[in-house]
Amino acid sequence: MLPALAELQQAYAELQAKGLKLDLTRGKPSAEQLDLAEPMLALPGVGKHADDTGTDTRNYGGLDGGLAIRRIFAELLDVPVEQLLAGGNASLTFMYDVVAFAELFGFPDSPKPWAREDKVRWICAVPGYDRHFTICEAFGIEMIPVPMTPDGPDAKAVAALVAADPTIKGMWVVPTYSNPDGAVITDDVARALVSMPTAAPDFRIMWDNAYAVHHLTDDEVTSPNAIALAAEAGHPDRVLLFASTSKITFAGSGVAFLGSSAANVAWYKKHLSAASIGPDKVNHLRHAMFFDSADGVREHMRKHREILAPKFEAVAQILAERLGGYGIASWTEPKGGYFVSLDVAPGTASRVVQLAKEAGIALTPAGATYPYGKDPEDKNVRLAPSMPPLDEIRTAMDGVATCVLLAAAEAQAAK
Amino acid sequence: MLPALAELQQAYAELQAKGLKLDLTRGKPSAEQLDLAEPMLALPGVGKHADDTGTDTRNYGGLDGGLAIRRIFAELLDVPVEQLLAGGNASLTFMYDVVAFAELFGFPDSPKPWAREDKVRWICAVPGYDRHFTICEAFGIEMIPVPMTPDGPDAKAVAALVAADPTIKGMWVVPTYSNPDGAVITDDVARALVSMPTAAPDFRIMWDNAYAVHHLTDDEVTSPNAIALAAEAGHPDRVLLFASTSKITFAGSGVAFLGSSAANVAWYKKHLSAASIGPDKVNHLRHAMFFDSADGVREHMRKHREILAPKFEAVAQILAERLGGYGIASWTEPKGGYFVSLDVAPGTASRVVQLAKEAGIALTPAGATYPYGKDPEDKNVRLAPSMPPLDEIRTAMDGVATCVLLAAAEAQAAK
Repeated sequence: MLPALAELQQAYAELQAKGLKLDLTRGKPSAEQLDLAEPMLALPGVGKHADDTGTDTRNYGGLDGGLAIRRIFAELLDVPVEQLLAGGNASLTFMYDVVAFAELFGFPDSPKPWAREDKVRWICAVPGYDRHFTICEAFGIEMIPVPMTPDGPDAKAVAALVAADPTIKGMWVVPTYSNPDGAVITDDVARALVSMPTAAPDFRIMWDNAYAVHHLTDDEVTSPNAIALAAEAGHPDRVLLFASTSKITFAGSGVAFLGSSAANVAWYKKHLSAASIGPDKVNHLRHAMFFDSADGVREHMRKHREILAPKFEAVAQILAERLGGYGIASWTEPKGGYFVSLDVAPGTASRVVQLAKEAGIALTPAGATYPYGKDPEDKNVRLAPSMPPLDEIRTAMDGVATCVLLAAAEAQAAK
Repeated sequence: MLPALAELQQAYAELQAKGLKLDLTRGKPSAEQLDLAEPMLALPGVGKHADDTGTDTRNYGGLDGGLAIRRIFAELLDVPVEQLLAGGNASLTFMYDVVAFAELFGFPDSPKPWAREDKVRWICAVPGYDRHFTICEAFGIEMIPVPMTPDGPDAKAVAALVAADPTIKGMWVVPTYSNPDGAVITDDVARALVSMPTAAPDFRIMWDNAYAVHHLTDDEVTSPNAIALAAEAGHPDRVLLFASTSKITFAGSGVAFLGSSAANVAWYKKHLSAASIGPDKVNHLRHAMFFDSADGVREHMRKHREILAPKFEAVAQILAERLGGYGIASWTEPKGGYFVSLDVAPGTASRVVQLAKEAGIALTPAGATYPYGKDPEDKNVRLAPSMPPLDEIRTAMDGVATCVLLAAAEAQAAK
């Protein structure tokens, strides 16, 4: 039984009176996390500009990216180093460029460039990552939502769709600690997705392993090796893997990675070679020196965990204390990644976000985790607790809980 | 009167016997030049991560790029800072992306995305920059050569073409110390190009000011302000300007710039925002700290000149000593930039490059300065003297001169 509407209205008025200015909108690392990589700001250091291979990293060239940093992430991502490119500062740019090249030129197995198709459609597990959806929208690719499950995208729903519809050319997967649900794809689901027959000959899975090493607990899970599984299943070119150090070193100045089959990597490089002479190899060297090895990355991520885990614990604790037992809300308690996915009373997510905003707490817009910004049930709210300090997280979450309760009570009263 | 064929064959045999391994192929800075910016490898330094505006450069965001570095280059490039973006490590990527966005989405004044046009054509002044031509070729844009003159592209020839043909959507211009001729566009030619009526409503000039501050003499010339002239002429959106620090700081780890009208910049950012959350702002801060001001850049470029000018003088001197007076070759003596353009006896450029190769001297492939790699007169050879040390330049140029003479004598003998 919810508290009385009047009581919640009073609590909300008190919340507003605090004049908060808090922000839970985006998965940005906090300054404290960025400080963990502060020594990088003086790297590689004067006189250190050659990499292990003797290449002068300051000069032009080297489309594949620096070998040392590729070796480190080849181990972490379980991709052969010769099938892994290191690029600029954003895996988002790699993803966009892959779709752009497909639109402009097509994949080697595309009947024609996607831009010349009457229609291109795409599967989006929901809730999902808004910037993935933005890429589809930018290219006019029609998005088809399928349910996200704790084991990954609903593989049966996906298989039924792609078997029948040759206009469906791809799908997004965040295999480890998905955005926003924190789900880790299971081996079974991964095998199903890389094995399923597709009506489109050039169907691709964009495997955005953004949180591959971003653990919040001792249970450091690993998602399945999709590139290897796809090859085993006879679809070696189905999977393109993306990752970056944005949430490892510096969000704006990290290194992005693209891994795939040899054929996909060659295809990508062929098109890239008209646009670039090579990525920022000094930044690659800087990262390789800072990490030294894959274990260096793992160790570094444990320092992130020390900062992040208490924030996620605070979110879970306050949500349980304030919302538990009413049956109006549910939320994830992820073992890694950057988000808590909060489902509120159906039809009230927009109202929750509005109430929070008017109390000085910025939340991701309701619907952002759905294609076209439209959550059909208007119930999902994505919480991003990484950026604010712990005390602000507590204050903000307490405020959010008040908003969730008030919106639910308002909805009940209106019935 | 050329030396006798037998005498030249003997000289060439002696050249081959030296077993040289020299490379004049690409406009890469030498290690000595890169060393000028070596202090940057320890910048911005531990504890220094906020820019002048208080922004934490390490985090996400800021699609326009760092304000401090944009202010410095806004002054150098004579573009209002709010119309100048700082991006990644390559102006080539900015150029490619502008054409890619035009192909995929069109400019605001495009009747339709260029990819949906039956044909898109483009004007290329020749000789020109091979990577410009590669971008056109990548998109299937048909290139129409017009003559390059010491004052810039032949404006009358361009005007006649663009007035009549709506499929001609753009042209390349390297306004300062053009690649490979070293020409600086005059005010008259610039005005003609930004004023001329064009059959295509969305005609664009890609103004690649790659060598804006790359002087080799005391005569530090400035090319006309094309963005301002275009606005004056009533075509504010015609010009997109590109530049970078690739040949100022580090070739692979510099900062690129895109300047244009407010409308073009907004158009570019709209599309970019689906692909990027922001560029590497730490690298922007690093550059701003290193230069401090526009004058800091100018001063830095004088150090490059001290290294480069003797190399260009050696090229000119040896060409004059070895080839002067025969009337079989002519060459440029640029006041800036990275290249010497050598015209050899018509029909012999390929042979010169082949002879040089077989004597261990790598030259840019004959024809590279023409669209599709086809120099109709087979006479232009691009020499890039920046990379090798001065003594190697002398040895290489002496060898090249022998090859030029032998190829000419062979051609005469074959007549």
